[in-house]
Amino acid sequence: MISVKEAQELVLQRASLFLVETIDIEQAYGRTLAEDMVADRDYPPFNRAAMDGYAFRSKEASEVTEWEITGDLFAGHQWDKAIEKGQCIKIMTGATTPSELDCIVQVELASVANGKVSFPNAPTRPWQNIARKGEDCASGDRILKAGTQLYPTEIATLAVLGKKEIKVLRNPKLAILSTGDELVPVGDPVSPFQIRDSNAHSLTAFFQSLHIPISHKAIVKDTPEMLEEALQKVISYDIIILSGGVSMGDADYVPGILQKIGIQKVFHKVQLRPGKPLWFGQNPNGGVVFGLPGNPLSCQVCFKLFIEPYVRKCAGLESKNQLVYPIAFAKKKKVKLDEYFPVELQNGVLYPIRFNGSGDITSTLGSTGLALHPIHVEDLPEGTLLEYISWV
Amino acid sequence: MISVKEAQELVLQRASLFLVETIDIEQAYGRTLAEDMVADRDYPPFNRAAMDGYAFRSKEASEVTEWEITGDLFAGHQWDKAIEKGQCIKIMTGATTPSELDCIVQVELASVANGKVSFPNAPTRPWQNIARKGEDCASGDRILKAGTQLYPTEIATLAVLGKKEIKVLRNPKLAILSTGDELVPVGDPVSPFQIRDSNAHSLTAFFQSLHIPISHKAIVKDTPEMLEEALQKVISYDIIILSGGVSMGDADYVPGILQKIGIQKVFHKVQLRPGKPLWFGQNPNGGVVFGLPGNPLSCQVCFKLFIEPYVRKCAGLESKNQLVYPIAFAKKKKVKLDEYFPVELQNGVLYPIRFNGSGDITSTLGSTGLALHPIHVEDLPEGTLLEYISWV
Repeated sequence: MISVKEAQELVLQRASLFLVETIDIEQAYGRTLAEDMVADRDYPPFNRAAMDGYAFRSKEASEVTEWEITGDLFAGHQWDKAIEKGQCIKIMTGATTPSELDCIVQVELASVANGKVSFPNAPTRPWQNIARKGEDCASGDRILKAGTQLYPTEIATLAVLGKKEIKVLRNPKLAILSTGDELVPVGDPVSPFQIRDSNAHSLTAFFQSLHIPISHKAIVKDTPEMLEEALQKVISYDIIILSGGVSMGDADYVPGILQKIGIQKVFHKVQLRPGKPLWFGQNPNGGVVFGLPGNPLSCQVCFKLFIEPYVRKCAGLESKNQLVYPIAFAKKKKVKLDEYFPVELQNGVLYPIRFNGSGDITSTLGSTGLALHPIHVEDLPEGTLLEYISWV
Repeated sequence: MISVKEAQELVLQRASLFLVETIDIEQAYGRTLAEDMVADRDYPPFNRAAMDGYAFRSKEASEVTEWEITGDLFAGHQWDKAIEKGQCIKIMTGATTPSELDCIVQVELASVANGKVSFPNAPTRPWQNIARKGEDCASGDRILKAGTQLYPTEIATLAVLGKKEIKVLRNPKLAILSTGDELVPVGDPVSPFQIRDSNAHSLTAFFQSLHIPISHKAIVKDTPEMLEEALQKVISYDIIILSGGVSMGDADYVPGILQKIGIQKVFHKVQLRPGKPLWFGQNPNGGVVFGLPGNPLSCQVCFKLFIEPYVRKCAGLESKNQLVYPIAFAKKKKVKLDEYFPVELQNGVLYPIRFNGSGDITSTLGSTGLALHPIHVEDLPEGTLLEYISWV
């Protein structure tokens, strides 16, 4: 049985960048840019008025005290008349300052009387209140590098640059197969010896946190034939996730069938609780298969420890910073495995989640993430610093 | 002109919980539960085998050394035969342990020979390796409270409980109107005196970070008639966001038209940079209107300072913890306003974003959020602790 660290390395070794797809900017949130983005023109694209005010030639300011207002200029419009000596134009923020003018005095500092305007106490320096063409960047400059994560400010920049179609790393094609005769879909009638399939829902939600949709979901009965048929349908996918069927029971066909259909086992079983029966394999087409235990908490722990880091690496995302916090309680070592358990992080301190027995439902209630009681560390006194992984 | 704090209070005073809608569990990610969720049955719903192994009556273990295996029991199936003294059944994890059996020895501790099984060194305590019906919670117990945020572990719990249809706070109906004759949609040809509408895209992406879709978006020309027509179309919406048209220029019709159509002004102008011209009003139908400055960074700052806290309160989310970090640079006070400026947070320290001139494009490049240089604080020495707001 290998350690969690070894297993994580074996998983990450198989992660390579996803291929590229072109999407609309409206779908860009959370995606990874797959091309450098260069400026299509200078920015600002023109000498832009940065204030509402009056524009004129600064060199005339020593001679002219009352300016004739020869017209109004609004943003989005072009000035096409001559501007004589002693004349100014009223200009609005965002407008294209005519090329012969180099000074704007803001409207708050202007006094208008008899159709003329004067600026008794205003400075009149060249280029004041004008954002000059190209001062921010030049046409052809590289603005965003391939590999950049796209969030609101990056998306705003793409919009400024006019990038409607964007090359990003494509989302993986992803299948979730929940195995077990005891499973019924949520919303269907459930008999006293059946349970609902909750793992498909937690996995879907975890992938929603990564902004990745699921391409295929199914509940698969515990027979070798049904399992093989279900797997063959999604054999070309990038990531296949099974839950259930990986431990020691007579109906745990998953490892055998996976190897039968050509998935190469990388490891089976990890020094981990919960999650020990984890199975991981390589699909010869480049994809991977995760066989998760069926227990809901095990499934969630395995997602956070193995699947999320794998997907983040494939998507070009940096690995998350390791967080460490003190615990507000003492904890006894239960078993010689890396034990991950739900905790609530509050003001920089980890609190326990109280649950009895099996913890079907209550084990994660109110938890914000997982803490690690490492394999080789005995009982933990209050205040011990533990690794912490946030659920989302 | 009011302070940022006063303006934030005036905005939050108008935030009330959104109404309720029913959604499918598949859409639950990030939503706020609007009803208490109670257990539909005991959990575990039956005496569940927690191991693959052999089940029998513990009280017989003192007499029986070799057990007859009378059958196999798989998860999802019901046992319907008698079990005689000295008999056991082979049972798989997740199966419904027959009510007369109270002990499971895991398969790893069993020796099978000649169709019989013995457990030479295994403990045989009552209820070992069985998760008992109801030990986690009882039918009717309240499991999740109204107001709970739904993330993967909560969604898994809803699935376990069979909640396919879920009452959550409904998303607000949301309109974004970008005003300005200079604006063209991203992807359209742009003339030398026009720019693309980027604010609609940053706002859309910010709302994506809150998992809220935009109901209506439009670019509106700078005429009073067009503006009024565009506003009347969305007058019944919960939140109307305008960008542009709120400062002192002759084409800044927004405040006048808003008041004309019955939106009551709450405030106009805030001691804030960038973002000073912010307009905020109350719609008599209970909704609100934000009139944001057109400058992209101003628009982003106003979203983070006013719109996000408003929406979070309406959605029943807790306000975010205030974060404070030291700056790795010194900064001079530029203007007697609360100055928010883009920074990069790295390992608990804030680094400056270098940009020249107008910063059309480069002002937020590489930034992770905003830091505050407060209005009444003069120059900041290196190492000063500043409030920090993360972009997402």
